[in-house]
Amino acid sequence: MNSPANRPKVIIIGGGFGGLAAARALKNAPVDITLIDRTNHHLFQPLLYQVATGGLSPTEISAPIRSILKDQRNVAVLMADVCSVDRAAKQVSLVNHAPIAYDFLIVATGGRHHYFGHPEWEALAPGLKTIEDANRARQRFLGAFEAAEKAETDAERKEWLTFVVVGGGPTGCELAGVLPEIARKALAGEYRRFKPSDTRIVLIENSAHVLDNFPDDLRVYATADLKHLGVEVIPLRKAADIQPDHVMLDDGTRIPCRTVFWAAGNRAGPICATLGAEQDRTGRVVVTPFLHLPDDTSVFVIGDAAHVRWLGDGTVPGVAPAARQMGECAGTNIERLLAGITHLKEFSYIDKGSMAVLGRNKAIVAAGRLHFHGVIAWLMWLFVHILYLAGYRNRLLVLLEWAYAYVTYRRGVRYLIKERID
Amino acid sequence: MNSPANRPKVIIIGGGFGGLAAARALKNAPVDITLIDRTNHHLFQPLLYQVATGGLSPTEISAPIRSILKDQRNVAVLMADVCSVDRAAKQVSLVNHAPIAYDFLIVATGGRHHYFGHPEWEALAPGLKTIEDANRARQRFLGAFEAAEKAETDAERKEWLTFVVVGGGPTGCELAGVLPEIARKALAGEYRRFKPSDTRIVLIENSAHVLDNFPDDLRVYATADLKHLGVEVIPLRKAADIQPDHVMLDDGTRIPCRTVFWAAGNRAGPICATLGAEQDRTGRVVVTPFLHLPDDTSVFVIGDAAHVRWLGDGTVPGVAPAARQMGECAGTNIERLLAGITHLKEFSYIDKGSMAVLGRNKAIVAAGRLHFHGVIAWLMWLFVHILYLAGYRNRLLVLLEWAYAYVTYRRGVRYLIKERID
Repeated sequence: MNSPANRPKVIIIGGGFGGLAAARALKNAPVDITLIDRTNHHLFQPLLYQVATGGLSPTEISAPIRSILKDQRNVAVLMADVCSVDRAAKQVSLVNHAPIAYDFLIVATGGRHHYFGHPEWEALAPGLKTIEDANRARQRFLGAFEAAEKAETDAERKEWLTFVVVGGGPTGCELAGVLPEIARKALAGEYRRFKPSDTRIVLIENSAHVLDNFPDDLRVYATADLKHLGVEVIPLRKAADIQPDHVMLDDGTRIPCRTVFWAAGNRAGPICATLGAEQDRTGRVVVTPFLHLPDDTSVFVIGDAAHVRWLGDGTVPGVAPAARQMGECAGTNIERLLAGITHLKEFSYIDKGSMAVLGRNKAIVAAGRLHFHGVIAWLMWLFVHILYLAGYRNRLLVLLEWAYAYVTYRRGVRYLIKERID
Repeated sequence: MNSPANRPKVIIIGGGFGGLAAARALKNAPVDITLIDRTNHHLFQPLLYQVATGGLSPTEISAPIRSILKDQRNVAVLMADVCSVDRAAKQVSLVNHAPIAYDFLIVATGGRHHYFGHPEWEALAPGLKTIEDANRARQRFLGAFEAAEKAETDAERKEWLTFVVVGGGPTGCELAGVLPEIARKALAGEYRRFKPSDTRIVLIENSAHVLDNFPDDLRVYATADLKHLGVEVIPLRKAADIQPDHVMLDDGTRIPCRTVFWAAGNRAGPICATLGAEQDRTGRVVVTPFLHLPDDTSVFVIGDAAHVRWLGDGTVPGVAPAARQMGECAGTNIERLLAGITHLKEFSYIDKGSMAVLGRNKAIVAAGRLHFHGVIAWLMWLFVHILYLAGYRNRLLVLLEWAYAYVTYRRGVRYLIKERID
């Protein structure tokens, strides 16, 4: 094994599911790995909507990347903002830090929200990707009820009590699914000038049924479940305009509301654009079946940032298991290249199925040909998520929070640090 | 009981220990109470230093004021910023809200930090009064280690690894006491370019021994305990200047450091100044033994905002039990005034003693003539705090967090949402 000084340098950008898997795959490789992330923590994004609605603390779904990789001595973690990649010079430029050279680069920067050419909507309709997003959403959601209590007219109060979720994917549905429960149970009896049950929750979905990555039968169930929970599902519609006091739909319908959540579109992070490689229309970098750039075997792109063919003309979906599998594949291929092996491993996505939870005790699960819905699916969802949270050491606390919330209908995380931010 | 329409209006400003106690004391009074707070939550301030150091989540030491008072039907909670009190018009002015009239007013606005004529220090040396303060302090504290890992020179790294606490009162000592444990145990092995044990913690105290509200024997123990923990206690010194990269003491000593915590001085909130009543030099309003203004029986001031004579020329200390007792007294007196009883209850402070925790398993407790220190005192501290947290529903979670932290030396709350804020 070469001496540390001249060991090949591997840079991994991003400490999400993909980046961590890649680092772990290189555990025994004779390399020096630098994992760079804008924050200091790995985040269990699938439960972020629970933080946004006060069900869980950020702590409970995040873990410091340093702690996770503490014992892997060939990794150094760096909390820094990457501005760009210079493939010619083989280095990464950072904010307030000298550039870092690499022999191999793994880009695992994930995605941000996509407002379809309306960046100005972001301030009015935050999405859910980071803890900051979730804290902000929580502040807006709980703050709206405080504002409703202070509203001077019934019309204004009605606006504060109307919540619109744009986008009927898993995040949008799971978010919309918990809102009625909170409004009608958790906050019941705490306000004097309105009943939280006056709350109106609207979910805007541009196709006929929500959750378009699920089989049709389950999509029908999901739509019915949401309606049963008290969510107004408006299918076949897009947001045409978002203003502080209303959302305008593409058919001209005007929904007066003060709180909008965005769960409609994703776009690969800005770093991808600096690679000088082909990107699809959502900014994902088109890579070879081996996950490196077509013209550069020293740069790999994985996870939500990668455009990887799957099932003919489809692409691998932007989900945690896919990111994890890509991370392992990229790590393996770097090890092979280091060993002078020219035959690289081709990435093949193993679809473990998908699930979405709908409110208090319903969910839908699609695992290959097997479809589940209702309480059984909800229990499967619960089991899988508790299982995945294992590494987060907070599993016990999360279980307690959930058990508490389930029995009492209360939400644990209720504090607001300032008046509603807009 | 009069009809709601013409029931006397009582306004309570502040949802701390004093304000809540006052509201509860008026539970059965034929009044309409409006409790106004800048935030939506009651905060268990004594444990705020645990939030600042990542030991607890804000959730675990806060509870929504609405939930606490949910079942007291004569109270309406309003989340709003009070700008001033107009005693002539008997009304309170709010930001973004119409003024509210009162028949009786209870000012329980607590205190903020006092930078002794150096407001510019606040940005560099945050104090600990609110959840925002604590989150900010946490961000600075944990962020400093990230910055140290990136530092380009040893001198700069040393500055990032030096933490100065100004003020040796309970907050200052409890804060300084946990820092060494975190640096040397919780973060051990996670950094590649320095050992967290290189951390230097300095506590600046302007008297000979820390904790000047404690008996001398315990103060000596406390100083020794802190030194044993690895805290450099610098007695008989004040901060003469605070800059981003150093603290200058009044004897000209320059301490290079990037992180300073302020625990030195308190000052009553700005609302007190608008009462047009006599204030002491820390801004506290001088009240009668019945807690109302000398010239106005419709305005009461309680808690940290009140200057109340005690033991000859002393004043009642700014601690939670005192605030609670004043709240009860003010409530009782308002009931008497409503009933036309001119003989009001005189406030007499019952000192239940004071305690401060020093690191992992030491504390000091003074209860009248009884003095305790070491592990016994620590167990007493633990018992009392768990007991007081009862109302916060998070007692179990707090216990778990503590048990976990105690056994593993880890801190639960480690996430940083952005690079170190300065």
